[in-house]
Amino acid sequence: MPRGQPASVPDDGLTTRARRNRPLVVVHTGTGKGKSTAAFGMALRAWNQGWPVGVFQFVKSAKWRVGEEHALRTLGASGEGGPVTWHKMGEGWSWIQRETGGHAEQAAEGWAQVARDLVAQTYRFYVLDEFTYPIKWGWVDVAEVISVLDARPGQQHVVITGRDAHPDLVAYADLVTDMTKVKHPMDQGQKGQKGVEW
Amino acid sequence: MPRGQPASVPDDGLTTRARRNRPLVVVHTGTGKGKSTAAFGMALRAWNQGWPVGVFQFVKSAKWRVGEEHALRTLGASGEGGPVTWHKMGEGWSWIQRETGGHAEQAAEGWAQVARDLVAQTYRFYVLDEFTYPIKWGWVDVAEVISVLDARPGQQHVVITGRDAHPDLVAYADLVTDMTKVKHPMDQGQKGQKGVEW
Repeated sequence: MPRGQPASVPDDGLTTRARRNRPLVVVHTGTGKGKSTAAFGMALRAWNQGWPVGVFQFVKSAKWRVGEEHALRTLGASGEGGPVTWHKMGEGWSWIQRETGGHAEQAAEGWAQVARDLVAQTYRFYVLDEFTYPIKWGWVDVAEVISVLDARPGQQHVVITGRDAHPDLVAYADLVTDMTKVKHPMDQGQKGQKGVEW
Repeated sequence: MPRGQPASVPDDGLTTRARRNRPLVVVHTGTGKGKSTAAFGMALRAWNQGWPVGVFQFVKSAKWRVGEEHALRTLGASGEGGPVTWHKMGEGWSWIQRETGGHAEQAAEGWAQVARDLVAQTYRFYVLDEFTYPIKWGWVDVAEVISVLDARPGQQHVVITGRDAHPDLVAYADLVTDMTKVKHPMDQGQKGQKGVEW
């Protein structure tokens, strides 16, 4: 997409530079493909800037995103861009080191760590993969999420992925894209395949 | 997204394995963000499978996608996954080594190379970034593109990105996602920023 000029200049008292560097909350939602994939694609740019990248996978299976995880970990260890830290709920969060409680409890634990990291400015780019679901299911309170995001210090960008993003989160976010399915091979009886789906 | 079961099993005479491994033509279109970003995210999975990845950037500026290019080149050189080859129209295609003709001629040259590589099975995963535009502008004939894609041998996946994908290409493709803009910071007067947009 072209790096165009903004359609209007807001009367918000910010300089162009301050406005340009405003940290973003980004939501990728919808029923189509590419929500998480695009978030990990964004992480490549953050890595290239030398920024610390933190990924939190709010999914049950530790087998998901193995390709992306291998790639981001390899980049993080390459010594060229920023460091990459990858946390998976599916195998018990790394800072807990064991399986505790059910999925609701694990998701709440994950969010609590994200909130701590935002306060500490541990990372500059966060991927909260599939985080719309714990919010949708009431395991994490959307008002608290917005409050913590809104109070985060510094220049921390946060990308949240998953279907059915909460309307309050959509209203709060700076950039929201809906990935809309036009056509999918599974409609024609094809299963997912390695190298494409994972 | 869940790796679900297909909604129906087609009467196409293929085994499940053959159907599963059918090479895909994927289109990311729409006015929202994430079209190219998700394509490069898919390239991470292809790299992880050890597949040769070929990127063809059908854009004018060689400065675009610098983060993704650095990341994919670093991965390709890591010795862990597949090799990555990155071709940019914006600085003259690498196999030509000089700026020739206008954009129309350069785009046609790029497509001719893609067609040769498909016949030769040079790569297993192709990103044809912003390739919808040369088709839209008539620089490359959509019927020829579909013919070449349809005749490609082996197991070569091709991802095409850009707005305004030609209806014939959408009809032909196996997987089509429309990235729909819900909300964008530039609507509120914010310009793009490093680490997020590039």
